[in-house]
Parts: sequence; C-alpha cells; structure tokens
Amino acid sequence: MDCNEWHLPSKPSPLICASVVNMADDLPSVLVLGPPIVFTYYERRFSENFHFLKPWESSIPLHEFLTTYAGSVKAVFDSPKCPVTKDILQNIPELRFIMTSSTGVDHIDLHECKRRGVKVANVGSIFSEDVADTAVGLLIDVLRRISAANRFVKAANWHQKGDYPLGHKLSGRRIGIVGMGSIGLDVAKRLNAFGCIISYTSRNKKPHLEFPFYPHIQELAAKCEILIICCALTDQTRHMIDRTVMLTLGRNGIIINIARGGIINEKDLVECLLKQEIAGAGLDVYENEPNVPEELFDLDNVVMMPHHAAFTEESMRHVYEIVVANLDAFFSNKPLMLDVI
Amino acid sequence: MDCNEWHLPSKPSPLICASVVNMADDLPSVLVLGPPIVFTYYERRFSENFHFLKPWESSIPLHEFLTTYAGSVKAVFDSPKCPVTKDILQNIPELRFIMTSSTGVDHIDLHECKRRGVKVANVGSIFSEDVADTAVGLLIDVLRRISAANRFVKAANWHQKGDYPLGHKLSGRRIGIVGMGSIGLDVAKRLNAFGCIISYTSRNKKPHLEFPFYPHIQELAAKCEILIICCALTDQTRHMIDRTVMLTLGRNGIIINIARGGIINEKDLVECLLKQEIAGAGLDVYENEPNVPEELFDLDNVVMMPHHAAFTEESMRHVYEIVVANLDAFFSNKPLMLDVI
Repeated sequence: MDCNEWHLPSKPSPLICASVVNMADDLPSVLVLGPPIVFTYYERRFSENFHFLKPWESSIPLHEFLTTYAGSVKAVFDSPKCPVTKDILQNIPELRFIMTSSTGVDHIDLHECKRRGVKVANVGSIFSEDVADTAVGLLIDVLRRISAANRFVKAANWHQKGDYPLGHKLSGRRIGIVGMGSIGLDVAKRLNAFGCIISYTSRNKKPHLEFPFYPHIQELAAKCEILIICCALTDQTRHMIDRTVMLTLGRNGIIINIARGGIINEKDLVECLLKQEIAGAGLDVYENEPNVPEELFDLDNVVMMPHHAAFTEESMRHVYEIVVANLDAFFSNKPLMLDVI
Repeated sequence: MDCNEWHLPSKPSPLICASVVNMADDLPSVLVLGPPIVFTYYERRFSENFHFLKPWESSIPLHEFLTTYAGSVKAVFDSPKCPVTKDILQNIPELRFIMTSSTGVDHIDLHECKRRGVKVANVGSIFSEDVADTAVGLLIDVLRRISAANRFVKAANWHQKGDYPLGHKLSGRRIGIVGMGSIGLDVAKRLNAFGCIISYTSRNKKPHLEFPFYPHIQELAAKCEILIICCALTDQTRHMIDRTVMLTLGRNGIIINIARGGIINEKDLVECLLKQEIAGAGLDVYENEPNVPEELFDLDNVVMMPHHAAFTEESMRHVYEIVVANLDAFFSNKPLMLDVI
C-alpha cells in the first residue's frame, strides 16, 4: 500500500500548513508516516513532548514533502501502512531512528537502515494477548453463532420464530496453530485450557513445546479441523492457505485469520465458504483492506472484524508509553527499549 | 412457566391423535413433558426404542391428558420447561422414574418423588464445557465488540467510515465467578489461561481452589470488574444481582449471565445499562423467556443469545445417549446412570 493513498486530504487547510511549517518551538522534530492509529488517539499528548511533521495533512506528494520539510529530520514514527523504503530513506539523509508502532518490521528496509546507521525499534509483543483473545473470540463466535444469535434476538425473532439452530462444541476440538510465535503461543495456551487438542506448524519446531509439530501446512490441515493463522506474511507464507489446504481441512473446517490477509488466498476462501467446502471463518484481516469480499456478507458462519484484533484502549495506552519512552531515549542519547537494529 | 402454554397447537391433527392413542406396539411407554429440545432433534431415533405420549400435541388440558392417557405410565422424560409438581405426580400414580434433559432438578418436586418412590436422573454436568465456552465467548464479544464489528464490516462501513472504535482488553482483568459449581470451575479454568485474576462467591468456600473466596456478592463485586453468573436459581439467588451490586461493580463493570434470568433483577440491569452505570452485558438468559428487554436491542455493548449456551450438536448427541441408556436401564431393572434420588 502506498502511504500517499492513505488519509490524504484533497487540499491543505490553514491548520495543516501550520502543522507543517511551525517548527519555532524547541521540541524535537519527528516525522510521522502512516499515521499509526495510536497517533490519532494520543496526538495531543504526544505533542507535549515532540513536534510532529504530518505529510498526510499536506497536499503535496510524499517525496516532495520529505525533501521540502523533512530533509533534516532525525526521527521517524511509522506504521506498517507506510513502508520505509530505500527510496524514502534517501530523501531523509539525516535520519538516525525509526520507531514503528507495530510488532512486525517487514515494512522497513532494515538492510538499508543498517547501511545508513539508522536504528529501528518496535513495540515488542505487546499486542499478543489482545490478538490471541480476539482469535479465541472469533472462533467461539463462529462455532456458537454468537453474532448471528445476537442479531436473531435483537430482531425480536426468538418470540416469533422459536428455537435457534444448534452450534458446535469448541472443547476437545483439534486446533492447528499456523505460526508459533508470541501470538500463536498465547492462542495455544488459551485453547489448551478449553480442552482443545493443539498442534502447530512453524518455521522451526519449538523444543520447549510439547504440542505436536508438523513442518508442512498440508500435514497440519490433515490432522486438524480448525486452523488459526498467527504467522508473519512473507514470500513463503503468501497464499499458503489455499484451496488445497481448505479441502484437506474438510467440510467441518474453520479458519481464523488474525495475522495478515495475504496469507490466505482470499478467492479460494470465498469459493470454499460459498460451496460449503469448509464450515466457517473468523476474519480480522483481508488481502486488500479496507476492501473485503462482499460475497461473505450474508453468511452467518463468517464473522468479520475490521483489522482490529490488536486494538484496545489498553494496548494503545501501552504503545503510547513505549513510543514516548523510546523517542525520549533517542533524543537523550540513552539506550532504546526493544531496539531491532 | 406452565407447560400447557408451550407449543400447544390450536387443535389436534390426525397425526397427533394417532401419536396419543396408538399404543399397539410393544415398546415401553414414556410420557414426554416440556418437551426437551433434544427430543425435537432426536424424536425419530428415540422412537425406535420407546413409545412416546406427547401432551403438547393434544388439544385437551394437561391434567385431563394425564388422567385420560398417562395414568398408567411408568416413566417421564421431562425438561425444565414443564415443572413436575405434586399436582402432576398425583395424576400419574404409577410413575416410577423421571428422566430430565437438564442438569438442574429444581423444577421437580423431589420430596414428593421420594415419598412416592419415584427415581429421578439428570444428565450430570455434560453441558458445563459448552456453557463455559459460551460465557467466555460472550465476554470477549462484549469487550472486543465482535458482534458489532461484524455488523460494521458487513454493512460495508469500513471503507466508508474508516476506523472502528477501540475495544477493551480481557487479559489481566479481575473476574468474579458467581457460583463455583461445574460450570463456574470450567469458566475459571478458561479465563485463568487468559491471565485474568479470578475470585468467586459460592454457597461454600472450595478448599481445593486457590482463587480468593468472598462469601457475599457485594464483597465480590467490590473486588472485580466483571461478574460471570454461574449459580443455580434458588430463593437465595433470585435477584441477587441488583442495582446495588451493579453500582458496586462500577462504570467499567460487565455482567455475563449464562445461568438463569431470575438471578439478575432485569429491570435494574436495563436501567444501569441505559444510564451507562455499567459498561456492558452478555446475556443468554432472561427473566421472562422468550420475552427479552427490547430497550437493550440498540446497545452494541449488550450481546444477547436465545438461551443457547448449552446447545451444540455435540451436547444434544450426548444427552440423547444418556437418556436412551437411562430409560433402557429403568425398563430393564438395571442401575441408572446419574441418578439424583
């Protein structure tokens, strides 16, 4: 996704021009790219400590903005919405620090950062619990039809139509975790307490885990009824969950995706759901957000969220604190928390 | 609730008359009261082993039906929809066994059964896992706004309206379990794995549990943000959760009820939710089912189900197996499973 496409206003307002050019105060300048969601919630408080350059409020293209206003900026606050490419880095040659609001750093050209002596820090695994909670919530919702039941009751159908269809049991089900990082582990811990039978695939077997490990997704799908996608999106994982995997999972199969949309072949997923070749899906992420497959809108066995698995008031507060602490540390020449390089 | 009000057709059909009077086969006769939901799903298979008398398919009042057709019946298959009172028992003097489709037996006059030498069996705690799963699902749904988010995405609002409001974190929250029986324990086990801080109230402290115990609901509410109602409905627990408890829980308070509607003062609950004196509720049960408080229909922070926490295809199958095994045992003079008296 090109960050020029994101929240770009049609023309600059007086306020926007002021925010771009007013660097008269003594606060350290930080270029914001994305912008991170936490910035929209905490901008006022962030602004007590830093002066922010906000290219999305400007009408000029990003590259021109960078050369015009940000050529001397030393710190960037970024989200995965705006990849930090070699090209962008060339336009801000004085840059020494990138703070990303995410756990993943695959949107940043780390090789070029290292070459230029740019430090990078992320927010660690602070989203893992919230994302794992959402994965479990989506799974229970799909199995027990909670969203659809809520709609049924609130449409005053219970009194009129009588009994509601039965759901399916979670406890004791065979769950395959795809990617046993911090989020995958938190999902496994939770579902283990429901009496589920956990197994997983991951880049490597985790020697400290007793859950069965299958190196290939096809093997995992053959052993499970439910797949929970928790891995990073890479060249290796893109479209890893395709029609073949779904057919192996079978007619009782359920897929939960709280990772990245591109890990699933969305066209295949829509086809398998419409043909009832799998039983349901809980989706927080999509291949082309915020566009989602409209063919799924009428399916009660598909529960959809708007890429929100990580976003709670508590996690935003935590991200805010880490970002402020790291930017403070950078501008004070103190050690960074959670530095990646 | 009077079982005469439940599913009573306006006039008997030829099929109905046949089902009442056709006792020509040699199968043992069982009077069905309620009827249990499992009976509606498994009637055909049940009928391979037993001949059923179904008063709800008759146009005559229950008492008349009992004296006319069921005076000699030895076994009843019942659900909590139809209380087995002293009055009913007097009309079926040959009765020797009541099989209820529920865990609770508070709808059966056990004292009178004992006096008359009528054995009673229930289905044990087979619903506990499904009910506990639903409690956790409702809680995550309320905190993370899953049902509302699903509606938001499926109404094509994400693209148009942009970011969705933040939810609230589950992990680490202070949870109070009201009633530490089989279901309460299953809820506690699950939420413990989410890193929640569990405490409970119950008739008695459970010596084998390390979770803090508070003998009074007010003490528990003062220590917690979330109450999960898992106790039986008794004279002591009726309206136990009232406005005083809710105000003690406070503005961040959430109440989940998967037990019985009458444990909560529903009028107080509606008032506290409308005035935002508590933060939300997840409700599977209501005081006057299937009537539900319509004032809650527009609240995204209230997630409602139609008394379905226990009902999965798997639990129905399990109930079917236990009921058939127990009726078989009774008619063969073999020991009953899960007999209560």
